[in-house]
Amino acid sequence: MRRIEVIGLRYDREIVKGDSVSEAVIEAIKSNGVKLRDGDIIVVTHKVVSKAEGRVVDLNSVNPSGKALEIARETDKDPRLVELILRESREILKISGGHIIVLTKHGIVCANAGIDKSNAGGESYVVLLPEDPDRSAREIRYRVMEEFGVRVAVIISDTYGRPFREGMVNQAIGFAGINPYRNYIGKPDRDGYIMRVTRVAIVDEVAGAAELVIGQTTENTPFAIVRGVDYEECSECSFKDLVMPKEKWLFQ
Amino acid sequence: MRRIEVIGLRYDREIVKGDSVSEAVIEAIKSNGVKLRDGDIIVVTHKVVSKAEGRVVDLNSVNPSGKALEIARETDKDPRLVELILRESREILKISGGHIIVLTKHGIVCANAGIDKSNAGGESYVVLLPEDPDRSAREIRYRVMEEFGVRVAVIISDTYGRPFREGMVNQAIGFAGINPYRNYIGKPDRDGYIMRVTRVAIVDEVAGAAELVIGQTTENTPFAIVRGVDYEECSECSFKDLVMPKEKWLFQ
Repeated sequence: MRRIEVIGLRYDREIVKGDSVSEAVIEAIKSNGVKLRDGDIIVVTHKVVSKAEGRVVDLNSVNPSGKALEIARETDKDPRLVELILRESREILKISGGHIIVLTKHGIVCANAGIDKSNAGGESYVVLLPEDPDRSAREIRYRVMEEFGVRVAVIISDTYGRPFREGMVNQAIGFAGINPYRNYIGKPDRDGYIMRVTRVAIVDEVAGAAELVIGQTTENTPFAIVRGVDYEECSECSFKDLVMPKEKWLFQ
Repeated sequence: MRRIEVIGLRYDREIVKGDSVSEAVIEAIKSNGVKLRDGDIIVVTHKVVSKAEGRVVDLNSVNPSGKALEIARETDKDPRLVELILRESREILKISGGHIIVLTKHGIVCANAGIDKSNAGGESYVVLLPEDPDRSAREIRYRVMEEFGVRVAVIISDTYGRPFREGMVNQAIGFAGINPYRNYIGKPDRDGYIMRVTRVAIVDEVAGAAELVIGQTTENTPFAIVRGVDYEECSECSFKDLVMPKEKWLFQ
């Protein structure tokens, strides 16, 4: 019988610029009484990484460009927020019905470049996505492995909408130590035929599972341990492996 | 500390037309020695539901229409498969690079109307999606609650690709007894501000978590129990609540 556990880690301290997320994770593992095991996956909500990196911006410090002012009028958004969205994006994909869908510098297709006003620390503040979530995941991974002497993987996550489905789900935006896929290509099915499908993006399924304990609000659970997942350790794997090249997009 | 468990249920018998999925689930719960609890969510991979319903088609029995022959030429697909895709779809959304993206009768946007050749039982056989996954979920739910005297929810799942992200993830295609969303709209964040976001589609996160133990191949784990999820019981909720109306689609 295969069994997976998802353990939410409470952590009540507010993380601010200059803090080490690695040390916060280590402290949370200890204070929650979790004994880390080989193969555990640590999921970290991106917001604490962004805050530790100082990726919190006071909108009062932002001067919107002419282009930002124009898009702000069209979408009825704060022009300073639009300016930040433009700065964080490689490309604007769609402006429609008050939504700005972009391709971020990281290769994520999402609304508002993932910039969020909630839990930002004040009325005029917003939180940007981490600079390089893969790098943050690698740093946390090495530090945690060094501290506890076990082999783990780390996923940085954020919550996104989907183009043709209501509601949002948590997904990986960076990771370390894990092949993002479980690969069935070339494997036989129950009847001995070769699977037509399928690479399953297990890092996204793990991020989603973690969200069920992490939540979105005041619950002070920024980290989760996901235990028992069958995955391949991979040191070279990165978020780039999940980015779909534009020539494969069927919808523009 | 919040904790969720995902328990895969082995079930080695092949499910065929006329079998009761409810009885198979009950048998699997017993034979795996799981003691069901109030609030448990049972995830059932759609393929066993389809097979029990006899939604397995021998391609040799299918006569492709002229339209199917035309699309088959364009996409280099089997015209008999294309014929089935047309029959299962409300609308063809996109034909591009060998892919046929449709809106199914259930309201799912996906490739090939969710028709699958793997685990179909033979070279010329394919499996269609269940006729009405919500109804199947309701039937399983009532029968399981009656048998064990506990309150549970049921999710029927399938694995799909995403428009702008490589890899596939498991998602809900029908459910019973659960509000598909955890709703944060109007809730205060850590700083007391109102959340801009967000309805999290927890049924999809639960389906993804279950896939991590269910897998896709010969592992004979068609069911999973997901335990410890904080959700709202809802008897009237249905997949329609997850269907995004076309006027909200930003990509066509």
